[in-house]
Amino acid sequence: MTPDFASLVGAGNVLTGADMAPYLVEERGLYHGSALAVVRPGSTTEVAAVVKACAEAGIAVVPQGGNTGLCGGGVPEGRAVVVSTERLTRIRAIDPINLTLTAEAGCVLTNLQAAAEEQDCLFPLSLGAEGSCRIGGNVSTNAGGVNVLRYGNARELVLGLEMVLPDGRIWDGLRALRKNNTGYDLKHLFIGAEGTLGIVTACVLKLFPRPREIETAMVALPDPAAALSILAAARTASGDAVTACELIPRIGVELCLAHVPGARDPFGQAYPWLLLLELSSSRPGGLRQALEGVLEVALEGGHALDAVLAESGEQRKAFWRIREGIPEGQKKEGGSIKHDVAVPTSRVPEMLERCTAAVEAAMPGVRVCAFGHLGDGNIHFNLTQPIGADKQAFLDRWAEMNKLVHDIVADMGGTLQV
Amino acid sequence: MTPDFASLVGAGNVLTGADMAPYLVEERGLYHGSALAVVRPGSTTEVAAVVKACAEAGIAVVPQGGNTGLCGGGVPEGRAVVVSTERLTRIRAIDPINLTLTAEAGCVLTNLQAAAEEQDCLFPLSLGAEGSCRIGGNVSTNAGGVNVLRYGNARELVLGLEMVLPDGRIWDGLRALRKNNTGYDLKHLFIGAEGTLGIVTACVLKLFPRPREIETAMVALPDPAAALSILAAARTASGDAVTACELIPRIGVELCLAHVPGARDPFGQAYPWLLLLELSSSRPGGLRQALEGVLEVALEGGHALDAVLAESGEQRKAFWRIREGIPEGQKKEGGSIKHDVAVPTSRVPEMLERCTAAVEAAMPGVRVCAFGHLGDGNIHFNLTQPIGADKQAFLDRWAEMNKLVHDIVADMGGTLQV
Repeated sequence: MTPDFASLVGAGNVLTGADMAPYLVEERGLYHGSALAVVRPGSTTEVAAVVKACAEAGIAVVPQGGNTGLCGGGVPEGRAVVVSTERLTRIRAIDPINLTLTAEAGCVLTNLQAAAEEQDCLFPLSLGAEGSCRIGGNVSTNAGGVNVLRYGNARELVLGLEMVLPDGRIWDGLRALRKNNTGYDLKHLFIGAEGTLGIVTACVLKLFPRPREIETAMVALPDPAAALSILAAARTASGDAVTACELIPRIGVELCLAHVPGARDPFGQAYPWLLLLELSSSRPGGLRQALEGVLEVALEGGHALDAVLAESGEQRKAFWRIREGIPEGQKKEGGSIKHDVAVPTSRVPEMLERCTAAVEAAMPGVRVCAFGHLGDGNIHFNLTQPIGADKQAFLDRWAEMNKLVHDIVADMGGTLQV
Repeated sequence: MTPDFASLVGAGNVLTGADMAPYLVEERGLYHGSALAVVRPGSTTEVAAVVKACAEAGIAVVPQGGNTGLCGGGVPEGRAVVVSTERLTRIRAIDPINLTLTAEAGCVLTNLQAAAEEQDCLFPLSLGAEGSCRIGGNVSTNAGGVNVLRYGNARELVLGLEMVLPDGRIWDGLRALRKNNTGYDLKHLFIGAEGTLGIVTACVLKLFPRPREIETAMVALPDPAAALSILAAARTASGDAVTACELIPRIGVELCLAHVPGARDPFGQAYPWLLLLELSSSRPGGLRQALEGVLEVALEGGHALDAVLAESGEQRKAFWRIREGIPEGQKKEGGSIKHDVAVPTSRVPEMLERCTAAVEAAMPGVRVCAFGHLGDGNIHFNLTQPIGADKQAFLDRWAEMNKLVHDIVADMGGTLQV
């Protein structure tokens, strides 16, 4: 029997039938699910009551935040209830001296960024879905994003956690401490567990001083290895202030230029690789000079073929547009087979070489479009279909291509991002 | 029956009788233990064989690194074997581009710092026992030290881990990846588990660009609250480059001056509190100016009563001598009752006030000497015996004082460092 959820959270917060539709599918429509109900508790106590009732009734619980995941983890199936955190949107505390923010799981990421900024602080987690993803999901999936290089993954940004365990007990680890060595650190077991060990209901997040200076450069490279020496030099010269280091292949630029409105090549020449390098610091002054020094040395040494620094916010946005337009460009170009892989940063060039050789041998004409977070060793090794190929026939080889790439990555001590 | 350890690690690496003496006591002599043997494996495989043999024979295993712990955790008792990691001293890999170092558990901390420096990198973990403590112990106890504010505890510095589990299996989590979301993050369960879940045999550690500029100031304060606004301003103005922020009370200075050879008060006047502030960055230039700016504003606003910047390495050392001499000064002054507690940084002043009032009410004449890592909210709340008191009678009240202090700390969402 389905528990009487209405008595626990109010009838208006129990959705059934057609009202459940948006909760049963992820945004690309690749996964469709079904559920007994969508329940929207309004407090940690209510989450606990719902989970307890489900445990007693033997009903599966699927936690859901912004439902922005693309792996189907938030999509229910079978005898399941979706527990949505969307009503848990309170910022419980913000402490600019302790540099912490205590947020409920349903807070939308951009709202937390804004709350930090109001206190002249930075909450550095930033990713594509930030306008609709919710912090509970970010924590549960150990989200990455564009600032990992400097600030770490979601895991590194969490000081404390409040959870509802699978039997409905509340686990209170909501500490705002920089040092806490009491007992086993269960918090880190829950982070990245994707909701399988319980539901995140609130968390204490780390804040940082807000950057006062941001410098962005687009650098043309002969090859990916050159990017590594530029990155190392930039980290040192800037006082470890490199916040983004994104590798962009020629084909990525081409696909943007072909399909993304307003995209412009920052260079007058078709360079084989570009590097988007961004430095930011709360210490005003000196960063631009440091970056210029690094690029000068790189140009002299042949690691850089050309370089341009953003002179305005507009120009900075234009640089990022190239980077962020690649998935859209790929999509409009036809089928793409995707891999999100990580290896030690120093081994990215070797990984690119080996994986490219393997997929090109298996599928002549395939167009490798490998781009992404070089600074974290995390590359989107994506394949665009051969020109003129049949899209479905291409996509049918998804698993085959995945195996080729993932085997090489595993052999190199790497991993898949899921 | 005791397993035949000699067949597993060689007869020369099985110590018994008087040879075990240094492994059965911690350095202050507060804990004395006993063991069947001290076994010194030379490889991960040997550690696994020893642990398996112990598991099968029902013998307790006590892992031991440099045996520098002061809580007795490394001291065996009963039917136990000490497994010493002191022969596991190989640095397996160092990668200045990936900014990682792969070290075996028995590597002495200073050796790792030196290996990093040879590659123009920094391994930031730094603490009093660094000349003899071993990295396996640092990881197992989630060691802190003087650089936590900027670089985190040992936990934050570990990317990968190799463990021998209690049944003798080897758990291979020795990844050098900045992003790794496969499965539950068991690594963090092992870190800080003090060897109760297995023995750390190797780890991959994070490196950072080596600082090019270090600026150190001693600041005189009216009260601890003033330190918080100086810290916040310094973090922002320096680009989050504050690497140490140590609070020192007047009595700490006095005890140093009285008992520590060569200690000198940096000021000509007896200020109630001092703050040792250190900034360091791999970006050369600008840090001193930033620090001077912060101190100027603090002096104008009354948060600082006086301030002096180190003009030389000698002067920097003299500042640190005051901070580091406090425990020695306390020891020579008579009995001291110790608390190592952490609260949110913003609540340190309140904690100091409440705890001081409580212990002074319970023991008139007690001298509170509270000092330490203000930036982490981690304070050594130590009590020096009343002048002329009987040392033993004072120390007999250890548990009573502990309870007073720990209850207040717990009430404030704090914790004890153990």
